[in-house]
Amino acid sequence: MRYRITLAYVGTRYAGWQRQPNAPTVQEVLEAALERLTGSSVRSVAAGRTDAGVHAEGQLVSFALERELPLPSLVRGTNHFLPADVRVLDVAPVPDDFDAQREATAKRYRYRIHRATPLPPDRAPFAVAAPRELDPTRLAAAARALVGGHDFAAFALAGGAARTTERRIFAAAWEEEGDELVFRVVGEGFLRGMVRGLVGTMLEVGTGRRSLEQFVRLLSGGARGEAGPTAPAHGLCLERVELA
Amino acid sequence: MRYRITLAYVGTRYAGWQRQPNAPTVQEVLEAALERLTGSSVRSVAAGRTDAGVHAEGQLVSFALERELPLPSLVRGTNHFLPADVRVLDVAPVPDDFDAQREATAKRYRYRIHRATPLPPDRAPFAVAAPRELDPTRLAAAARALVGGHDFAAFALAGGAARTTERRIFAAAWEEEGDELVFRVVGEGFLRGMVRGLVGTMLEVGTGRRSLEQFVRLLSGGARGEAGPTAPAHGLCLERVELA
Repeated sequence: MRYRITLAYVGTRYAGWQRQPNAPTVQEVLEAALERLTGSSVRSVAAGRTDAGVHAEGQLVSFALERELPLPSLVRGTNHFLPADVRVLDVAPVPDDFDAQREATAKRYRYRIHRATPLPPDRAPFAVAAPRELDPTRLAAAARALVGGHDFAAFALAGGAARTTERRIFAAAWEEEGDELVFRVVGEGFLRGMVRGLVGTMLEVGTGRRSLEQFVRLLSGGARGEAGPTAPAHGLCLERVELA
Repeated sequence: MRYRITLAYVGTRYAGWQRQPNAPTVQEVLEAALERLTGSSVRSVAAGRTDAGVHAEGQLVSFALERELPLPSLVRGTNHFLPADVRVLDVAPVPDDFDAQREATAKRYRYRIHRATPLPPDRAPFAVAAPRELDPTRLAAAARALVGGHDFAAFALAGGAARTTERRIFAAAWEEEGDELVFRVVGEGFLRGMVRGLVGTMLEVGTGRRSLEQFVRLLSGGARGEAGPTAPAHGLCLERVELA
């Protein structure tokens, strides 16, 4: 019997989603919880392989269980065996050939910049301190330039499994939420480190250190060194995964 | 030169405010940061000696420095040497005989109960899952009964330095904030574990497990075993300290 769950986690303690030999990962604690619940070994697939330190509010994960379980028991039982920083929010039965990674048609990521000084300690795990003199108008223009199909080679970290560096962005914007400037981007898929590379470079546009024109030029391809730094992982969150 | 700072911290990693031989404390990291900034040893006094795991948004701390420092440099410099889960929000010069503990005339504590299931992972460090069938009307009545002078012996943990178990409460109420039920209490002073003992017992009143009358009776004194459990530390936050 195959299931799809919506998973939320605080990435601080984890070396990312994907199982690794010598570091705690979200996949490992989820599969361990499912194994304690069901007594059988479980292999799971996530829609977005979030990197070390990245959070999720709406990760989608699929897996098969040997026996059918009532859906509320699956949620409560898995949460019982999970640490408090990982939580199953929802579950649905899916067809036998469902694979969360393959079926995802779009993902929405969020990046939080905090403008209050000092950064409040309870926000420190989830947001990054804003650089001085950030111009929201320049940030907005940079975000608008992202929409459409581009070659994001200049913004990707090595180590991704992608065959091409071209990706389509459906929506991108910076919004003010209280003391925070929040970047949201929806795309069909993202290269490894791409959102953080875009944020690090857009912040340079926002402070005036980099021209908007140069940023736009990089959206047609370029070497990683031509773009700005990769923004820290803990500002990033996988908010939502869309299915067909 | 004597200073008073407003300090915020996430208590998760700390064995409370007060310095201890073999466990990290907020006092220790603050004094270490001040020592790195000034090059001299510093002893600090806090208005509220928060227990292990308890947070603060408005702790007041006083200390003397051998040399005068510009106030903005004191804030920025101390924060530079503090971990991200402890932050100096503000600083003011105070008279030579100022002592944050002695000068505090009232403290406001907050306790967060989260009603969504499951508890979102980013709220787990700051709130406690609500018991089922909590009646806000019964909680409100219990909070109202707290206002005034009472003997809180039944709600205190051993190990406090108090000479008497009588305390005066100025205000107490439960409020709804989004998915959370938030208890706020203002008093001239609190016994060790008192707010958490009151919350643990009020939750029993709120679920109907304990009568309001029995709760009110305990406000005239009683053994610790007669009241309810001590609610977990991580739901509690020292919000504010009032000075004369």
